[in-house]
Amino acid sequence: MPVLFDLPLSELRSYRPEPSGPADLDAFWRATLAESRAAAGAARFEPYDSGLRTVDVYDVTFGGYAGQPVRAWLLLPRHIEGRLPCVVQFVGYNGGRGFPHEYLTWSAAGYAHLVMDNRGQGSDGHTHAVTADPDPSGAPQTPGYLTRGIGSPQTYYYRRLFTDAVRAVDTARTHPRIDPDRIAVLGASQGGGTAIAAAALGDRVAAAVVDVPFLCHVRRAVRITDDHPYRELATWCRTHRHAVERAFATLDYFDGMNLAARATAPALFSVALMDTTCPPSTVFAAYNRWAGAAKDITVWPFDGHEGGAAHQTAEQFRFLAATLA
Amino acid sequence: MPVLFDLPLSELRSYRPEPSGPADLDAFWRATLAESRAAAGAARFEPYDSGLRTVDVYDVTFGGYAGQPVRAWLLLPRHIEGRLPCVVQFVGYNGGRGFPHEYLTWSAAGYAHLVMDNRGQGSDGHTHAVTADPDPSGAPQTPGYLTRGIGSPQTYYYRRLFTDAVRAVDTARTHPRIDPDRIAVLGASQGGGTAIAAAALGDRVAAAVVDVPFLCHVRRAVRITDDHPYRELATWCRTHRHAVERAFATLDYFDGMNLAARATAPALFSVALMDTTCPPSTVFAAYNRWAGAAKDITVWPFDGHEGGAAHQTAEQFRFLAATLA
Amino acid sequence: MPVLFDLPLSELRSYRPEPSGPADLDAFWRATLAESRAAAGAARFEPYDSGLRTVDVYDVTFGGYAGQPVRAWLLLPRHIEGRLPCVVQFVGYNGGRGFPHEYLTWSAAGYAHLVMDNRGQGSDGHTHAVTADPDPSGAPQTPGYLTRGIGSPQTYYYRRLFTDAVRAVDTARTHPRIDPDRIAVLGASQGGGTAIAAAALGDRVAAAVVDVPFLCHVRRAVRITDDHPYRELATWCRTHRHAVERAFATLDYFDGMNLAARATAPALFSVALMDTTCPPSTVFAAYNRWAGAAKDITVWPFDGHEGGAAHQTAEQFRFLAATLA
Amino acid sequence: MPVLFDLPLSELRSYRPEPSGPADLDAFWRATLAESRAAAGAARFEPYDSGLRTVDVYDVTFGGYAGQPVRAWLLLPRHIEGRLPCVVQFVGYNGGRGFPHEYLTWSAAGYAHLVMDNRGQGSDGHTHAVTADPDPSGAPQTPGYLTRGIGSPQTYYYRRLFTDAVRAVDTARTHPRIDPDRIAVLGASQGGGTAIAAAALGDRVAAAVVDVPFLCHVRRAVRITDDHPYRELATWCRTHRHAVERAFATLDYFDGMNLAARATAPALFSVALMDTTCPPSTVFAAYNRWAGAAKDITVWPFDGHEGGAAHQTAEQFRFLAATLA
Amino acid sequence: MPVLFDLPLSELRSYRPEPSGPADLDAFWRATLAESRAAAGAARFEPYDSGLRTVDVYDVTFGGYAGQPVRAWLLLPRHIEGRLPCVVQFVGYNGGRGFPHEYLTWSAAGYAHLVMDNRGQGSDGHTHAVTADPDPSGAPQTPGYLTRGIGSPQTYYYRRLFTDAVRAVDTARTHPRIDPDRIAVLGASQGGGTAIAAAALGDRVAAAVVDVPFLCHVRRAVRITDDHPYRELATWCRTHRHAVERAFATLDYFDGMNLAARATAPALFSVALMDTTCPPSTVFAAYNRWAGAAKDITVWPFDGHEGGAAHQTAEQFRFLAATLA
Amino acid sequence: MPVLFDLPLSELRSYRPEPSGPADLDAFWRATLAESRAAAGAARFEPYDSGLRTVDVYDVTFGGYAGQPVRAWLLLPRHIEGRLPCVVQFVGYNGGRGFPHEYLTWSAAGYAHLVMDNRGQGSDGHTHAVTADPDPSGAPQTPGYLTRGIGSPQTYYYRRLFTDAVRAVDTARTHPRIDPDRIAVLGASQGGGTAIAAAALGDRVAAAVVDVPFLCHVRRAVRITDDHPYRELATWCRTHRHAVERAFATLDYFDGMNLAARATAPALFSVALMDTTCPPSTVFAAYNRWAGAAKDITVWPFDGHEGGAAHQTAEQFRFLAATLA
Repeated sequence: MPVLFDLPLSELRSYRPEPSGPADLDAFWRATLAESRAAAGAARFEPYDSGLRTVDVYDVTFGGYAGQPVRAWLLLPRHIEGRLPCVVQFVGYNGGRGFPHEYLTWSAAGYAHLVMDNRGQGSDGHTHAVTADPDPSGAPQTPGYLTRGIGSPQTYYYRRLFTDAVRAVDTARTHPRIDPDRIAVLGASQGGGTAIAAAALGDRVAAAVVDVPFLCHVRRAVRITDDHPYRELATWCRTHRHAVERAFATLDYFDGMNLAARATAPALFSVALMDTTCPPSTVFAAYNRWAGAAKDITVWPFDGHEGGAAHQTAEQFRFLAATLA
Repeated sequence: MPVLFDLPLSELRSYRPEPSGPADLDAFWRATLAESRAAAGAARFEPYDSGLRTVDVYDVTFGGYAGQPVRAWLLLPRHIEGRLPCVVQFVGYNGGRGFPHEYLTWSAAGYAHLVMDNRGQGSDGHTHAVTADPDPSGAPQTPGYLTRGIGSPQTYYYRRLFTDAVRAVDTARTHPRIDPDRIAVLGASQGGGTAIAAAALGDRVAAAVVDVPFLCHVRRAVRITDDHPYRELATWCRTHRHAVERAFATLDYFDGMNLAARATAPALFSVALMDTTCPPSTVFAAYNRWAGAAKDITVWPFDGHEGGAAHQTAEQFRFLAATLA
Repeated sequence: MPVLFDLPLSELRSYRPEPSGPADLDAFWRATLAESRAAAGAARFEPYDSGLRTVDVYDVTFGGYAGQPVRAWLLLPRHIEGRLPCVVQFVGYNGGRGFPHEYLTWSAAGYAHLVMDNRGQGSDGHTHAVTADPDPSGAPQTPGYLTRGIGSPQTYYYRRLFTDAVRAVDTARTHPRIDPDRIAVLGASQGGGTAIAAAALGDRVAAAVVDVPFLCHVRRAVRITDDHPYRELATWCRTHRHAVERAFATLDYFDGMNLAARATAPALFSVALMDTTCPPSTVFAAYNRWAGAAKDITVWPFDGHEGGAAHQTAEQFRFLAATLA
Repeated sequence: MPVLFDLPLSELRSYRPEPSGPADLDAFWRATLAESRAAAGAARFEPYDSGLRTVDVYDVTFGGYAGQPVRAWLLLPRHIEGRLPCVVQFVGYNGGRGFPHEYLTWSAAGYAHLVMDNRGQGSDGHTHAVTADPDPSGAPQTPGYLTRGIGSPQTYYYRRLFTDAVRAVDTARTHPRIDPDRIAVLGASQGGGTAIAAAALGDRVAAAVVDVPFLCHVRRAVRITDDHPYRELATWCRTHRHAVERAFATLDYFDGMNLAARATAPALFSVALMDTTCPPSTVFAAYNRWAGAAKDITVWPFDGHEGGAAHQTAEQFRFLAATLA
Repeated sequence: MPVLFDLPLSELRSYRPEPSGPADLDAFWRATLAESRAAAGAARFEPYDSGLRTVDVYDVTFGGYAGQPVRAWLLLPRHIEGRLPCVVQFVGYNGGRGFPHEYLTWSAAGYAHLVMDNRGQGSDGHTHAVTADPDPSGAPQTPGYLTRGIGSPQTYYYRRLFTDAVRAVDTARTHPRIDPDRIAVLGASQGGGTAIAAAALGDRVAAAVVDVPFLCHVRRAVRITDDHPYRELATWCRTHRHAVERAFATLDYFDGMNLAARATAPALFSVALMDTTCPPSTVFAAYNRWAGAAKDITVWPFDGHEGGAAHQTAEQFRFLAATLA
Repeated sequence: MPVLFDLPLSELRSYRPEPSGPADLDAFWRATLAESRAAAGAARFEPYDSGLRTVDVYDVTFGGYAGQPVRAWLLLPRHIEGRLPCVVQFVGYNGGRGFPHEYLTWSAAGYAHLVMDNRGQGSDGHTHAVTADPDPSGAPQTPGYLTRGIGSPQTYYYRRLFTDAVRAVDTARTHPRIDPDRIAVLGASQGGGTAIAAAALGDRVAAAVVDVPFLCHVRRAVRITDDHPYRELATWCRTHRHAVERAFATLDYFDGMNLAARATAPALFSVALMDTTCPPSTVFAAYNRWAGAAKDITVWPFDGHEGGAAHQTAEQFRFLAATLA
């Protein structure tokens, strides 16, 4: 129902719900990242024959959460010399790194482009994944990934995915063709939520490009929309009634609203007022808490979860050109 | 669309597609079961306060696949003395053992009743599960369980679930109140496919009660229906196009059509002619191959996947009373 | 659409719309019940071979509205001696008494259990009915039962069903194995609305167990939800535009909001905040008006019309054990 | 799904399934009609202020089944003199006689026009009914009218409706402005099935106009479509499994395929090849059995249940002008 | 979702959003009409054999926008003498003038009845059109008519349709059987919006009958409903993001809210509170701005876009009889 | 419904329905193309600032049908020297040329890439169009483009679009950076049907890449699927019943089955067996008639209209590299 169903724009602009981050949120992530970095060896960048002629493609394997192998593509514009600014992209729910020729935007725009695979996802008919998610718990879960291991922050799926994301930024920084001070994170939907996490938890992220992000203000989202994937969480709560508070306590460690308050990089967000997948109030809840002062948000009044789509890409060209210049 | 969409009944009666079982199917299962039995310790039966007054309930933990802990309920009719015939029940897709008071039929009918939990499932709004599925691969999968680990028979989800099922029968046999020679397996949909597997692979199963079974003649099912859960497999194939044959090769080890040819216990099947979840031709493909001579199938002409429901239960009362008498 | 669509919980807790009961509501029911009781003979309890071994089942025929024959099952736990507390259950919309083995909860919990058939219903694919509803008017109606005879309280379907319900309680009280002072009424949805009526209009009901009740605050319900069965009423109003007020005037005699104000037994309600079939404000409208002081309501925040399901049953075990002890 | 889903047109042209009429079909109807005619008094024709200026409208009450009062409109073109040919129209499922200004076609075309109300129907948001259906059984039924009293031909709803239809023709014949030898019956969907019955069972019907008729070859219809209203029958069968054959035995007395073989008036049928409500094979099953030699059928290849709509009306103008000239 | 989704009736009664009409609205229309009238020759009224006997039908061709040929039916009650009051009817979205026998109401009620065809529409399965819309721009548009030429008021589709409507009134006035002082405009949905325009912009319109009008308060409508046809506009805005304001600026010249303020004829509106196609607040926005003092609005509380249907027709009989007497 | 609903693959391989091309098909197209080429001036290639750094983008305007201006993008890989092979791409239904950054595949693969805009389309929420379709008839049409001007081949929309396509190839050939002997046409769905037309009717097309093409064997398609856009045609036929044969006669000039028999370039097709938008039999009808001997078709067994998607792109890299080398 792509109509205005959430708060009016005037209220969204100033919507600032109380953060729900637990006291040990920083400690949790500090420990997680330290352990994972310690477990990871050097990334491998293997040349890959993609059939393309203006882009050099590398099949990347780096150590993600707990040092587990995570795959990515690195695309370098073949004919541009010198150190490049880099876009590290995180893919949406159910997607994966697919083929290199599905991710041609940023190398064509002159950036090194690292596309991180989504562990265990990428099996829903579009971009496929090849990275495994060795699940440490295997606890009962609603089909999908949103409730995988939700019983505790230690076992939660997004602990692993967000750590992978931070490690993807680390990995980009190690490549000789990439300028370590000009790395941006970027993503839409789950990729947007992951970009928030990477900006908040990663090192020296120079810019964040966040479209219609998922996993923000989850306590509200699950009550105002029935669309996938938030629906998976409602289904889980409906089944495991006595564990509901535990699930939300887990989610607090990962909620974009809580993480955004720790992110300081210049940021360009986008939000769509008819988005029932990631309702606008949940996006603004994160955006309004974003700690960096250099931030902007594009509002698409007639869109659903597709958001600004290619129109927003044009905005991003301008934003990144200015920010990473 | 509860209409007749599959073959006409007259053709279904004699529908016998070629089995697709691989040469090492028996060896595969023999090894799997042997290893799992070796790894399993004795089952625990802990009294459980269910709020019921005519049934004694035990919270059971037994060693399933690879000896991993699997939960079950054991319900014993409190006031019936002596060794009891037993029904071992397997639950449908997305379900779990739930509460004991959701499974009162068979103890009321005078049977010991063991309800096995579904590892990793039970999170879809109805009967919940508490058993984990420590996934040895974590490979990318379509949301659900049907494609979990489908890359090889070694890692496939149903290797673990079917082994749990055989072990559930083993477990029932160890209980002092249960007559080891009068154990039936029973289930509908995924539970029916699991019951076929338990009857084919387990020891001394005395009867099988199989309703509208899932996972039979999968190569056909995925081409003639788009309903969940077969749809998950089509989605997986659409994504991982170059791994499709590998997936079907995996499924051959688990297909009820192949396993039924190894099952000899007296059996009562049911099938519904308007069932788009488990199409009737796939059910007959298994039924017609069932090796035991004492078999019958109830045909429900106007039903979808609900099959005979409570009407079929009445048939089952008669069948089990006669078979396990 | 399992999202929060009705009033917020804080407002629901104190939501008390004006009752709409007509001045002669009590007189109407007094006369109706007196006539029906006068017309009814003694109930018949015929032993029934249900295939069960821990429960004695009786096929009951009692005189309901206008003494018309109404069927029920009586299930008695076979091995428990003495006078038993009793649960009289009313079944949901479109359902019927079905098979005894579809109603095993309460005998297993140690109660006598009388399951009343729904006159004229029970033909929608699940529990079937066998009781006729000799309709005294046959006036044009929207498919279903909600608008059957809605032209006046005299001819309205629920006059007959609610009278049956009061008579079911009367009937339970006549059985020698049932303790006449420990009879509870219970039901969900239409069964919940019927339980409210039975508690309000019946004699000496000792407890009421009411889940997500239907037929409460109907004037509001029909305006805020389009789900069946309330939708039938909207459809009727759309067709018979000049008779709308007459229909609502009829409904006032049956509205749970009005009847609850006449019910004094200890009560356990449940409500689901995402229930679009019986919206939460309509449930609270009845609950908040319930005249008995010993009342409680379980709130399920993530559920639709399934409400607390088996989780709520566990609550009911505790409530009835304490109340009918 | 407005696609070709049934037999190809070439097969439909010669599709002649075996009739299923019981041996006493004629006796059943002879007795029913005789009793009803005996019970009926003279019809009343009361002038009605319709707000129209070219049509005289009468509110008609005649004795239908068992002499029960049935309502109708009679519309007479005000300015045409002499005895008029007459169209007796039967309304579709869930409809009623509504307002006179909803039925202006045939008086404008120069016919007397009698529109019979549908007893008990007319409550679904479009044309409303005012005629009651005093139901002699009240047996459990699926919401709707198709399974009302289906337990026996004596109690079946369509016994009453079809008798009303024959009586409507009788009634038209008694009016001084109507030429008794030029009475046509007409209807679409349920109205078409009713027109078949009226032509087969009524006296001296001069023409039949039958569009996309319902209630023909029901045994097949219920297996090849899930659309309402046939779906009601499938639902009933799913619930009352042990009474299925009884239901079909009842239907045989009313099936248009069986009745058409008794109809000899000139007839114009229409059928739509994409009609999933009344599948084309079921229409041809009746048409091909129609006993009259002067028959034709218009085939609409791209239509669903709307059939030829206003295009077919133009055909009917020509057919009736020629037939009743 | 036929529930109350818009403002409550009490607020609707006084809902008066700011008009959005541009300064040159009157000049725009004055010029448009002057040019079109200058380009138009005399209308042709050709007798048409409709198969009807109480109505004389003429196939009308008149000069509409830019003098382009527009078709209409004129129906005259054959047997009523003298000058007749006239109803000029505009048809709903996707409809056309169809067959004369689809428009029998008003001639039967004693009016001359002119049914204007919808240029370029009439191809959606119901009433067909035969009038072309020689599109002066052919600019990219969302399927449908709502965004055809929306880039400027000069090229917008409704400039042409509304001009046709004014010219239809002109045309009726030229017919010798029609009383030029008793011409009413009438329509529902798009026909209602067109009737508003014709009343506001046309000459000497004696009455306006407006049901659930489309194209009123469009800026709000497109944000609160996703139903067709407003959805087409949202889709267009989603695609042509940088032209959104231009589109709304175009719409302001055609918005019923702005035009109603220029209409002074006695008017009967209707509105349906559950209408998601033309939400009630948008209808009241036009009604409350209607400049004529003799106005009334019928409120249908339980209806969707069908509005009052035949019930409203009865109201209209009374209104027009009184107004045009 | 992604299941196998059309002919089995073995029959599809040899499915060769009779062509339906009219006798003057070649003459029709010869005249149309000659006139349009005569009317067209030289194309304009204006540099465009796309924000990309590895691609030079030109905003192209060329003379299409009747010399009318048609827009396109030309993308040239910036750093590859010399004459380039060229891919001329036609966009799917409802799409347009959008932004250059939405079409990065082929320049990245080393080709000149000309993306032709779809006249009048491009307004459905994804890639937008800017090219007008000055419609010479404006005849009533079903919303969409499939029935625009369908009354005759002269006025039909696809006469204009297909002519544009041939002219796009002409235009590419005039560019100094493009090798005139290595021009391929490419498209999916409507773009595939257009590519067939361009290959059949254009000059010296060196290769054709055709995915799941639309507009092939239309007479069959409209009878076996109800999906858009074929549904528009069924809707049109349902409305304009007496013009149906004329519409199909028009379509015969444009049907890919008829045009393919005139195409001799090496071709790579793809087809999806679960494609209900462009059913596989209609694709094979064109493929099997393709006149060139060097042809191949990729069959995707588990896909709907998305076809091979990025997997097929990889096949196309190989095919075009080999064919245009």
